[in-house]
This record gives sequence, C-alpha cells and structure tokens, in this order.
Amino acid sequence: MFNNRKTIRKYTSKEVSEDLIRTLLEKAERTPTMGNLQLYSVVITREAEKKVQLAPAHFNQPMVTGAPVVLTFCADFRRTTLWAENRKAMPGYDNFLSFLNAATDALLYCQTFCNLAEEEGLGTCFLGTTIYNPQSIIKTLGLPRLVMPVATITLGWPDENPPLTDRLPIDSIIHNETYNDYTPARIDTFYTPKEQLEENKHFVEINHKETLAQVFTDLRYTKEANEAISEVLLKTLKEQGFM
Amino acid sequence: MFNNRKTIRKYTSKEVSEDLIRTLLEKAERTPTMGNLQLYSVVITREAEKKVQLAPAHFNQPMVTGAPVVLTFCADFRRTTLWAENRKAMPGYDNFLSFLNAATDALLYCQTFCNLAEEEGLGTCFLGTTIYNPQSIIKTLGLPRLVMPVATITLGWPDENPPLTDRLPIDSIIHNETYNDYTPARIDTFYTPKEQLEENKHFVEINHKETLAQVFTDLRYTKEANEAISEVLLKTLKEQGFM
Repeated sequence: MFNNRKTIRKYTSKEVSEDLIRTLLEKAERTPTMGNLQLYSVVITREAEKKVQLAPAHFNQPMVTGAPVVLTFCADFRRTTLWAENRKAMPGYDNFLSFLNAATDALLYCQTFCNLAEEEGLGTCFLGTTIYNPQSIIKTLGLPRLVMPVATITLGWPDENPPLTDRLPIDSIIHNETYNDYTPARIDTFYTPKEQLEENKHFVEINHKETLAQVFTDLRYTKEANEAISEVLLKTLKEQGFM
Repeated sequence: MFNNRKTIRKYTSKEVSEDLIRTLLEKAERTPTMGNLQLYSVVITREAEKKVQLAPAHFNQPMVTGAPVVLTFCADFRRTTLWAENRKAMPGYDNFLSFLNAATDALLYCQTFCNLAEEEGLGTCFLGTTIYNPQSIIKTLGLPRLVMPVATITLGWPDENPPLTDRLPIDSIIHNETYNDYTPARIDTFYTPKEQLEENKHFVEINHKETLAQVFTDLRYTKEANEAISEVLLKTLKEQGFM
C-alpha cells in the first residue's frame, strides 16, 4: 500500500474526530525516543482563526486553512526540564545537542503518525515551511522556551487522487560500506529520467530556465534566501534557549 | 500491530538479504521530501571490520557488531549540489537551514524504513548516538562535504522478545490550539506512573540517586557532556560545510 503513498493537499469537509487523532497519536508513541524521554509535543489546530494566523508562516499554502486539522510537531525539552526541576534534579538541556535530540524525536514521531494516519485512509501534507518562519508559529501557538516547532502536517479525508510523483532510483540513495561519490556520468544516469518527465520540462519552460536544477537554485531554494533564513533559524534557536 | 512495537537489540544469525533491504529502502522513498529532492543517503554496513570501526562512535553498544546489518542515514545535500553544478546551476546549500532540511528528509525517510522493516518482521534499534560522535562515523564511512550522519539503525531478525516499555499518557503530549504549560500538579500526574514502575525504582537505587530524573540529569545526559558535544557537533557541521 505504501508504494502508492501520495501527499494529499485537498480534503473533504468531513471532520477528523478528536478520538481518531488521539488514538493515532497514542499509537505513534511506540516510535523510538531518546532515553524514553519523548522529547516532543504536538499542538492541534482546529479553530479557523488559528489556521488563518498560521497560514502566513507557511507562505499561505491553501492546505493550512483548507484542512480540518493542522498538527504542529515540536521539539520539546521543556516538559522534561520541568519534570527534572520538580524532582531535585539539575537539567542541562539548553544547548544545541539537546535541540537536535528533541528534533529527532519529534520528526520520527511525526513520520510514524503520518504512516498510521494514511493506513486509516487519511491524507497528509508535510509542510517543510515550519522551519522557515518559526517565530510566527511560536507566537501563534504560544510555544515557551525549550520548545521549537520542527514539522507541520495538514490532515483530512482525501478529496483528490493526484498521480504518483517520481523518485530517484534507489541506487542513487544506497552506498555500500563507504560513500560512493557521484561522477558526472552517475549524476546523468540518476537525474535524466526526472529531467525528461513532461511535467518537469514544462516546469523549466514556464520558469524561463535552461535546466530543472536552475529552477531549484534560482527560484525555489536560493542561496540568498537559505542564508537569510539560516540566520533567523539560529536566532530563534537562541531565543528558545537551545544555543 | 504497531501497538506492540519494540526496539530489538538481539538478532539471530540469519542474514537479511540485500534484495529485501533494497526493496524496503525503495518503498520508503514514498516518504515526503523537500521539493522532491530526496536530501538523504544511506550507507549499508555488512562487513565485520567496518562494524568494529563504527562501534566506538556508538559507545560500543553490542548491537553494532552483533547485528547482521547497520544502516547509517545521512543528511545529504552533496548529490543535489553536484547535480546543480553539472546543470549550469549555482547551488547554495552550504548553510544551516539546508542542513536542517536534509536532516528532516533523512529522519522521516529513516522512520518510514523502520516502520516498513518491522512490518516484515525485522527488528530495529535506533542509535541516537550518531550525533554524539559524528566525526568518527564520517571518517569510517568516508562521508564528504555536505553529507552528515543523523541516524543509525541496527537491523536483523529478532532473537528476543522484550517487554513493552512505558510511555507518557497521550494528554502529556497533546496541546489544543495553544501550548498548555505544565504545572507541578500536571507533571506529577504524567510522571508518577513512570516513577512508580519497579524497573525504574530499581534503576534509581542501583545508581544511588534520590529521583529518576536525577539518573538522567546526573548520569545519562549531563549538562557538561551535552555542552561539550554541542560544540563538537557545531564544529562538525562547519567541517561538513553546513555552517
């Protein structure tokens, strides 16, 4: 079934019950977690007004206001820290390693949740934009120190059945024993099929570019934007107490 | 089935076929990924000698040399960067945002792989130690610039059936609309059942501590170690070209 897994961006008006979400989030708790500390929290957004407030952080992608439910998965060392402080223990989780530990926990948990939700017939869309505008999300959701949003999911019952998107051949992902670096010939082998797809040729054309890679480097994920956002991201990690 | 999901640390001597691993890694490619760029690579370790070399980075946990297969999941912006450079495009992915984008891709992919592998009856153990000693792993696996290990999995057919470990009540994880901060009373509600478990009481006793939280703060994940490792981690991200 997972062979046909697709991102779903359009949802029917049918509600996703609180019970179902709770059950799936609870089931997903079996995901491995550092020292069994469960360094994550999930903020559930159902109120229309909150979705409107969240939308700009996600570049106003229509799924945010269009989905019945939005879930924001957060790296959370606050709960563990408060537990320690209430138990005569001196926590030391206001550092970068602890952020990455908690982000790892949160992302693994999020992905299991998505896999389980899709098994139930739900559709999900993963919003990578979460780390592009974390400050606005932190404000909207009232996230305190040692809590950092790392992933957002829109969730609902599918109202579309898009075609499968392409993926790279598995040989481009796998390395045996040591990293097998990519020669120009191997890059050609792995990327030419993607570049030859009609939809990608069209994508290059409408963006007035010469190659598909240029659409990514010049328009979608530019060096300038990446560097500016990196600074905001590091500043936000500092503000949330993780640096 | 996922309700009974357990980490498996002991494996039978039965091989895990290359075909099965390839099939599962290929199936896992359906996991969402930033801009469909698939910012991850997986290094497969089967050679005994390589496992011995990897083991110290994982604090010599016996699973590393005991498992038939070890998989190291890497945040990889190198392949995409080389693709761009071979296509008259100017990549700009040597920054912190790009690391976090690629780490996110790699972790989501890793977790789907684990979920699929466990559905096949395989056992996995997630080694969070990967980011504690990245330099040694980078050297052993020959990881170039813009490639950073973020997760390691030991994999094999289960040779144990451990009891389920405890998890926090789901109400401790979920926040409705905004972050519902933890009062001392809520901390008590959520953590007392964990603290009352016989195994955890025993854990506190053999470590000569007063509370379970102290075992974590004073012994397992100390402030001093976290801060020292944070520095190494940031230094390594710089060396790999991500800062």
